[in-house]
Amino acid sequence: MKKAKKKIKASILIIGNEVLSGRTQDLNVSFISNWLNVNCGISVAEVRIIPDIEKKIIYNVLDLSKKFNYVFTTGGIGPTHDDITALSIAKAFKVKYEYDHRAYSILEEYYGKENFNEARKKMARMPKGSLLITNPSSAAPGFKIKNVLCLPGVPSILKSMMPNLKKYLVKGPVIISRSINLQTVESGISLQLEKLQNKFIKKIDIGSYPFFKLGKVSVAIVLRSQYPEQLKLCEKQLKQIAKKNKIKIINN
Amino acid sequence: MKKAKKKIKASILIIGNEVLSGRTQDLNVSFISNWLNVNCGISVAEVRIIPDIEKKIIYNVLDLSKKFNYVFTTGGIGPTHDDITALSIAKAFKVKYEYDHRAYSILEEYYGKENFNEARKKMARMPKGSLLITNPSSAAPGFKIKNVLCLPGVPSILKSMMPNLKKYLVKGPVIISRSINLQTVESGISLQLEKLQNKFIKKIDIGSYPFFKLGKVSVAIVLRSQYPEQLKLCEKQLKQIAKKNKIKIINN
Repeated sequence: MKKAKKKIKASILIIGNEVLSGRTQDLNVSFISNWLNVNCGISVAEVRIIPDIEKKIIYNVLDLSKKFNYVFTTGGIGPTHDDITALSIAKAFKVKYEYDHRAYSILEEYYGKENFNEARKKMARMPKGSLLITNPSSAAPGFKIKNVLCLPGVPSILKSMMPNLKKYLVKGPVIISRSINLQTVESGISLQLEKLQNKFIKKIDIGSYPFFKLGKVSVAIVLRSQYPEQLKLCEKQLKQIAKKNKIKIINN
Repeated sequence: MKKAKKKIKASILIIGNEVLSGRTQDLNVSFISNWLNVNCGISVAEVRIIPDIEKKIIYNVLDLSKKFNYVFTTGGIGPTHDDITALSIAKAFKVKYEYDHRAYSILEEYYGKENFNEARKKMARMPKGSLLITNPSSAAPGFKIKNVLCLPGVPSILKSMMPNLKKYLVKGPVIISRSINLQTVESGISLQLEKLQNKFIKKIDIGSYPFFKLGKVSVAIVLRSQYPEQLKLCEKQLKQIAKKNKIKIINN
């Protein structure tokens, strides 16, 4: 895996009416985002969820492909009429939509010649020039064309394919994060947090997320950075601020 | 609530590094989407998740505000330094970012004069000309400016506020949906489904979603439409197709 010094940014494009309508709860964003950071030092910088409409897919794939280092699409690569991701992306990049011979062989072997019907054959069609992303769960491969990597929508299948696309990515600096839970309301610490954020500006990203624990309002302060030493220093100073303000630090 | 005959389309803009980084699992999209359809006949047609960065918020609010009837934002309206939604939207629409007198009174009464510190006062600042969205959970109101409605990110608080924004929306035709579960692989029914979709094109949206039940692969066929009679007819024909192809219909 090649390594880059600067940040590598990705976007996720979720293609599926079922997620937009609220029928299906998306679980892929948090998985992909965590996986990319831990394994590749890549940050997800934008997500879009769009319907199964060709012109929407074309517009968003091209837009995100220009704006980010990588685009990960999920959904729409199965055998049914509403699976139009591969065809739409071929149109977006103005390349042929055709059988990939390796994908065809993989699927023919998986289903057996006699059961390899038209619907199943559809899953071997993709934009010309695509590289395959092997699928150890259900055979039908994903594909990469330019900086766009196409994955299925079913979370368990998607998860099984992630290790197989690592070879196509350039690695960036891994973001480390620390979460410190404080027993306070957000507004009891917010001014001090702002000062701390300004002190570590550009090196550390400080987030503040309220939650309830044992009936008491608490706040998770999340520090994120690619600089381990700065992160340690910031955590130390945050704990000093808490102590000075008599705010209890709660163990996770 | 006013009624429109044509479809009303909304978008959701989720503002929050914690969702992008994978730390927090979003639960608001499916809730808002279902709620809007059932209560207001409004369909969510696009979702974007973006970081807490002012220029990104400005760009996306303006873009979505032009493209859709409504934009619902979630997140970034609390008291901390990373809560920049209200200020960013004021900048987007080129209006002042100032104290709303009603919001100020609500918060002052909620916290008590002596505890109403600067951080808490921040939650009373919003774009000039905003209408309030009352918050029965934690007092700090959301707001509506032009066609943009701003809500907090914490799901329980957001949920409690939805009924209070209904008065600001124009109602569209409610989409009804039916889910028929078939014990088959997708590719066993996909050609017939495509024909059925073409027959009911523009009236019914047919989706196909594979799942596992009792160790067997099954498919949920979801029919969505604003026309109840057409929906009934389509469901009947789908069941006939299943019967003809010896595919078992499974109860939910």
